[in-house]
Amino acid sequence: MGFKRIGWIGTGVMGNSMCKHILNQGFEVSVYNRTKKKAEELVNLGARWCENPLEVSRNSDCLFAIVGYPADVEEVFLGERGVLSGAKPGSILVDMTTSEPSLAKAIYEQAKKKSIASLDAPVSGGDVGAREGRLAIMVGGDRETYEQVLPFFEYMGGNIAYMGGPGAGQHTKMCNQIHIASTMIGVVEALLYAHKAGLDMEEMIAVVGKGAASSWSINNYGPRIARGNFDPGFFIKHFVKDMGIALKEAERMRLSLPGLAMAHQFYVAAMAIGLENNGTHGLYKLFERINNPDIKT
Amino acid sequence: MGFKRIGWIGTGVMGNSMCKHILNQGFEVSVYNRTKKKAEELVNLGARWCENPLEVSRNSDCLFAIVGYPADVEEVFLGERGVLSGAKPGSILVDMTTSEPSLAKAIYEQAKKKSIASLDAPVSGGDVGAREGRLAIMVGGDRETYEQVLPFFEYMGGNIAYMGGPGAGQHTKMCNQIHIASTMIGVVEALLYAHKAGLDMEEMIAVVGKGAASSWSINNYGPRIARGNFDPGFFIKHFVKDMGIALKEAERMRLSLPGLAMAHQFYVAAMAIGLENNGTHGLYKLFERINNPDIKT
Repeated sequence: MGFKRIGWIGTGVMGNSMCKHILNQGFEVSVYNRTKKKAEELVNLGARWCENPLEVSRNSDCLFAIVGYPADVEEVFLGERGVLSGAKPGSILVDMTTSEPSLAKAIYEQAKKKSIASLDAPVSGGDVGAREGRLAIMVGGDRETYEQVLPFFEYMGGNIAYMGGPGAGQHTKMCNQIHIASTMIGVVEALLYAHKAGLDMEEMIAVVGKGAASSWSINNYGPRIARGNFDPGFFIKHFVKDMGIALKEAERMRLSLPGLAMAHQFYVAAMAIGLENNGTHGLYKLFERINNPDIKT
Repeated sequence: MGFKRIGWIGTGVMGNSMCKHILNQGFEVSVYNRTKKKAEELVNLGARWCENPLEVSRNSDCLFAIVGYPADVEEVFLGERGVLSGAKPGSILVDMTTSEPSLAKAIYEQAKKKSIASLDAPVSGGDVGAREGRLAIMVGGDRETYEQVLPFFEYMGGNIAYMGGPGAGQHTKMCNQIHIASTMIGVVEALLYAHKAGLDMEEMIAVVGKGAASSWSINNYGPRIARGNFDPGFFIKHFVKDMGIALKEAERMRLSLPGLAMAHQFYVAAMAIGLENNGTHGLYKLFERINNPDIKT
């Protein structure tokens, strides 16, 4: 593949595990994170600390980023001390943040003017998938670039798909989030109905989760809800961000998504009552509260 | 188990296949259906035709019904020429229709006064599951009765669960329908977004359907939508009935289910544009129409 010097920006729960898989292959890795402390483990494993994204890009043939919000992506790639100010012609930039398809296209266009290739490659599979190198990775950009980066994706993921031109990876991730948003509404309503009707939730899940109404969500989050465990898999605050991006992009395409809009609003309400750091199944607590006769208005 | 004489009421697509499994075991079966013609195959296989539910019940130690709507269930069990007018003390009545939990309780109570046992045992798995004897069966009533009938359920299904007292089978089926209702919204919105964004729908399903956003519905109905095949698995008109029952029971329990209510309304709109005999994934056509700029208002 030719790349020896790898850049990594963003060493949160996901990025830290993903970058480790690359370090473990013996590559020379330059790393930056807004909060320096969170990059310590990688530095101790041999990564070289850089003071900003620009410095990372000067030292990289291929650079990966996984940060928080679209505004962070914009700053990292297009900002004053951003990647595009330092990257060499012929290098490759890969944004693995879940972010806006239109921003992915903008980065692609601006990079192209400098003979730099770029991919959007958001992931699914959570902290466990990142740790175990089993992420789903949905990739948009030029196919040749995808093929050059594929070996690196294979260190991080198991279900890797080239989806089309720039933005197509982000669009695919939006499909993923749109599908799961309404499914989560179905999960919490089914469980709440079961509870009110006096059924054993886990017995209900055991039968419903095996048939034509089954979903990954009811089988994995359902039992956690039944046991009152609302620890994140995936944070509500991040899910709200993703749904907001999907709604914005859908509006841009003149596409009405009422189910997503409703789910988004309920998750905003979940944030309002302080559930932002719950897992997405924490939505159950909001629905429970709505229907609780013991809370006086 | 002691039962020799079996009654069967309702020989539609589901009932016909289910009754055949019992006939195949060599039981003496009495059969009735509102449309006599649809019972012909079973009569040719050795079932005895009866003129009404009452006559079936006079000839049965254990009687099964699977009909259309709660009103049909009421007529079959509680009507003038209904099952409860003819059934003998010690016999067992099993309603396998998806119907109202409160009606299941009423039948149970009235049967009990005559020393007749009854179960509610709705199914999931569609025509294919019925034909192949792989239905999910969710059972409410007395456990002793359940255990007496279990061998018969095992001729028809693979995923059989005793859920609790009378109505608990219906309540579980409602959980199944509540969960799938919002999931279907997620499926059609994800596919429509994919289409508008220029993604290949089947490639999107291949990656989304393997991960933490997967559902039986996207993996099974998604590719049919992508290929424009809207043949029923499960009819929209029957799904609308089921959602109506769930909403009514939820209201009775003072439980608000906004996701279900929205899905129900969209399926009512699908009926309004003539999709009642489409499969539940026909909802895609309604959402496509809402967003189609070529239809002038």
